[in-house]
Amino acid sequence: MHSSNNSQPMRTAITPTRSVDYPEWYQQVIKHADLAEISPVRGCMTIKPWGYAIWEHMQRIMDDAFKAIGHQNVYFPLLIPLSFMQKEAEHIEGFAKECAVVTHHRLAKDAEGKLQPASPLDEPYIIRPTSETIIGEAFSRWIQSYRDLPLCINQWANIVRWELRTRIFLRTTEFLWQEGHTAHAMADEAMIEARRMLDVYTEFAEETLAMPVIQGEKSASERFPGAVNTYCIEAMMQDNKALQAGTSHFLGQHFSRGFDIKYLSQAGMEEFAWTTSWGTSTRLVGGLIMTHSDDDGLVLPPRIAPLHVVILPIIHKDVDRDSILAYCEQLKAALQQMTYDNRALRVQIDMRDLAGGEKAWHWVKKGVPFRVEVGKKEVEAQSLFVGERCLPYKERYTQSMQAFVATISSKLATLQKTLLERARTRQMQYTKIITTKKDFYDFFTEGEGGFAVAHWCGDANIEAQVKTDLSVTIRCLPFAMQGQPGTCIFTGKLSAQPAIFAKAY
Amino acid sequence: MHSSNNSQPMRTAITPTRSVDYPEWYQQVIKHADLAEISPVRGCMTIKPWGYAIWEHMQRIMDDAFKAIGHQNVYFPLLIPLSFMQKEAEHIEGFAKECAVVTHHRLAKDAEGKLQPASPLDEPYIIRPTSETIIGEAFSRWIQSYRDLPLCINQWANIVRWELRTRIFLRTTEFLWQEGHTAHAMADEAMIEARRMLDVYTEFAEETLAMPVIQGEKSASERFPGAVNTYCIEAMMQDNKALQAGTSHFLGQHFSRGFDIKYLSQAGMEEFAWTTSWGTSTRLVGGLIMTHSDDDGLVLPPRIAPLHVVILPIIHKDVDRDSILAYCEQLKAALQQMTYDNRALRVQIDMRDLAGGEKAWHWVKKGVPFRVEVGKKEVEAQSLFVGERCLPYKERYTQSMQAFVATISSKLATLQKTLLERARTRQMQYTKIITTKKDFYDFFTEGEGGFAVAHWCGDANIEAQVKTDLSVTIRCLPFAMQGQPGTCIFTGKLSAQPAIFAKAY
Repeated sequence: MHSSNNSQPMRTAITPTRSVDYPEWYQQVIKHADLAEISPVRGCMTIKPWGYAIWEHMQRIMDDAFKAIGHQNVYFPLLIPLSFMQKEAEHIEGFAKECAVVTHHRLAKDAEGKLQPASPLDEPYIIRPTSETIIGEAFSRWIQSYRDLPLCINQWANIVRWELRTRIFLRTTEFLWQEGHTAHAMADEAMIEARRMLDVYTEFAEETLAMPVIQGEKSASERFPGAVNTYCIEAMMQDNKALQAGTSHFLGQHFSRGFDIKYLSQAGMEEFAWTTSWGTSTRLVGGLIMTHSDDDGLVLPPRIAPLHVVILPIIHKDVDRDSILAYCEQLKAALQQMTYDNRALRVQIDMRDLAGGEKAWHWVKKGVPFRVEVGKKEVEAQSLFVGERCLPYKERYTQSMQAFVATISSKLATLQKTLLERARTRQMQYTKIITTKKDFYDFFTEGEGGFAVAHWCGDANIEAQVKTDLSVTIRCLPFAMQGQPGTCIFTGKLSAQPAIFAKAY
Repeated sequence: MHSSNNSQPMRTAITPTRSVDYPEWYQQVIKHADLAEISPVRGCMTIKPWGYAIWEHMQRIMDDAFKAIGHQNVYFPLLIPLSFMQKEAEHIEGFAKECAVVTHHRLAKDAEGKLQPASPLDEPYIIRPTSETIIGEAFSRWIQSYRDLPLCINQWANIVRWELRTRIFLRTTEFLWQEGHTAHAMADEAMIEARRMLDVYTEFAEETLAMPVIQGEKSASERFPGAVNTYCIEAMMQDNKALQAGTSHFLGQHFSRGFDIKYLSQAGMEEFAWTTSWGTSTRLVGGLIMTHSDDDGLVLPPRIAPLHVVILPIIHKDVDRDSILAYCEQLKAALQQMTYDNRALRVQIDMRDLAGGEKAWHWVKKGVPFRVEVGKKEVEAQSLFVGERCLPYKERYTQSMQAFVATISSKLATLQKTLLERARTRQMQYTKIITTKKDFYDFFTEGEGGFAVAHWCGDANIEAQVKTDLSVTIRCLPFAMQGQPGTCIFTGKLSAQPAIFAKAY
């Protein structure tokens, strides 16, 4: 099925391919890897075992990083009183259109025997679209003195935002995320914290997801509702669109004033605290897919892969079964003695009664870094028939069990590095410095698009015009280009630094 | 503050004590250990860092146990269409009164500028009170053939049930839980699964929480809405009331028929699958508190304690600071080399600038198993001043650092065992075999109560009468007493086996 020869194009496991129809390819990768599915609940998804296992690995690694710098996990209520949402004007303005509203707390049968919402609530509740307000109320009670600061917490939670256009993992009505919230005595401490968490996200994206990102600040129009500054990391997908992969907000004293978060300073003065919040979500799974996957399906960086090696017993005759399975078990045990990323290797034997090719392609599409086929021949030769996810399927090779086990950890480390480098090269290839408005419009209408690095004077009208004309937005004002003034390509006015423009998810 | 002498009663850290006002003592233990607080959202709680850390340890240990037997984690939507809830008649009957209903998906300002729910939904959504229905819909699509069975999944999620009377951790409008859902080809496989998960819960309750439980089956009136059988584990709290600590349901084909979960059997016939579900929740934190804690606050079994040892530097003169802190760091490093429960010991140095007694009591109330005070004297003698949570505060002792480090792992193991034995002894002490109706009524009105083991003929009217008269319910028909027929103490009729009656949370 998946063979090729010189005269025919290679068949791929995923139809359509990336170049034919990228959005549909994305859906098909998710379907074939069995990561998640659209649920019958409007705009929501069901995350299936393989997708959830990836998310669990993301959670564990990020959670360890948060705890290592002293953040503690908590859990706040799902439901937020409507009155709380209104205490910060920009905040409610930004979220009003996306709020799911709980208005009743009971069902009862109507005259026709049909169940209907009964018992209206005195005050409606909003299902949290984010938790600054309910956490702000708690902070106002928890914080009394400078001794209570900094206060650094995080929660892993579900979020509901009634989005009109949804796309699995990337934008769903309900999603899973972590949201960190901190309060500080001084403005600069809060700013440093917001930047520090962006660094934590950056390291996670690059070192764990092998997804290179650009750090920067959002323009005013793209800020989180209620934030003074929003910092972000932006990644480039394989269709050259940007994906916002994480945000960190310096909230100034907006929420402190809204919720009366005050502390008694060392000097004995009552002061408003300075707060931050920062979040990443299951959208990262979408970013992971679109950064590495190919026309044969998912590709997983080893640090996040639920399995590092899958062992495929290939049994043609029943008489060989016991020896083949014993050999597979021996291999599994040997591999589990090895470590990668300071943990035991994750290994599974696929015992299903399927043809070898079918089994192998199952795991290709799921992105497992290494597949090992074991038949009678391999047992006799004490060898393995190895397939690597990032080599063409045909380039499987025979290796001794001993050599495979001895080198697997370093191979995984190399793969992790290679995936990051590959993605970084791609990102650089499609990032262009643009110096005229014409080149800018051409870049997004005639070429393959990508990240346009261009000077912009800060005029929000220009930003809005570009969005209307090209569906292109300012992804960020990159930190790396701060202090590089120039001339706005749209107005000829002074620009403090270049911005990165792109089409985005 | 906490001293005592022979003529005065010992002061306790928690007021009131258990014997004076048990419910208020429970609230005060939670407050002093800073585990959680009542939130401004009706009936909901905010779980604070120390409480959440306990829950995280529970999650990790249970999750490992589920995965070890092949269950996979998934995530289903929070919102359930009203029409789904109605597909199983008993199910909706049981939950209708507790449903939080989402009716709108937008907020907009009314004529007076007040924000109001806008954009009504075509069909209301229920915030999941449990997920059998939404998972049933998915199972009907995921399951086609006997090859797809058994299907064993679990999710960690938040749940909303609009309870009228709430009590922190034990019964809250929103709570956190895990819910497992499985589908099987044969009825007996599903029954075995439901029982197996009850065994997993039992082992967790006893070996991890050191909370002895009784396994049994619920009477019909106490079954989960839509279940054929509900199995449960019941623990005894220190006020002799019962706490249902986990349930596992054999759902028969109720949900399969409601949601059309069919499979093609090996014989080529279309059959309905047999399903189970099982859950435990943050209520276990409440059970943990009420099983072990005393009049000085929380007591934690080592397996679940966020910290095993807290080190308290006692610095009277600034000149001693460096040597004391260096000694504390040395101790911390040595302890972290030790393991308990196959993991490194969890150790923290409390660097706060507080008086020694205040610091020590802080950790007594939080239930940390071992406290180690280190002052100038200890540094000079290479010793430690050790306090054990389960010894009276006054009985602190001096030990060499070497001896403490060498014995800490076995001391923790002993403590874990001791707590279980202590609770088991208590449970046995307050479990009485009752043979007459008069003794039964006396047991619950005149004595200290507890678990009454009594024959019951199965008449639901008797059960209801007892509930009305005494607020006593049948906790379970214990498995251990199956096949022990007798005479019903209420009616004189035949009883298949004794039941356990108790007042309950």
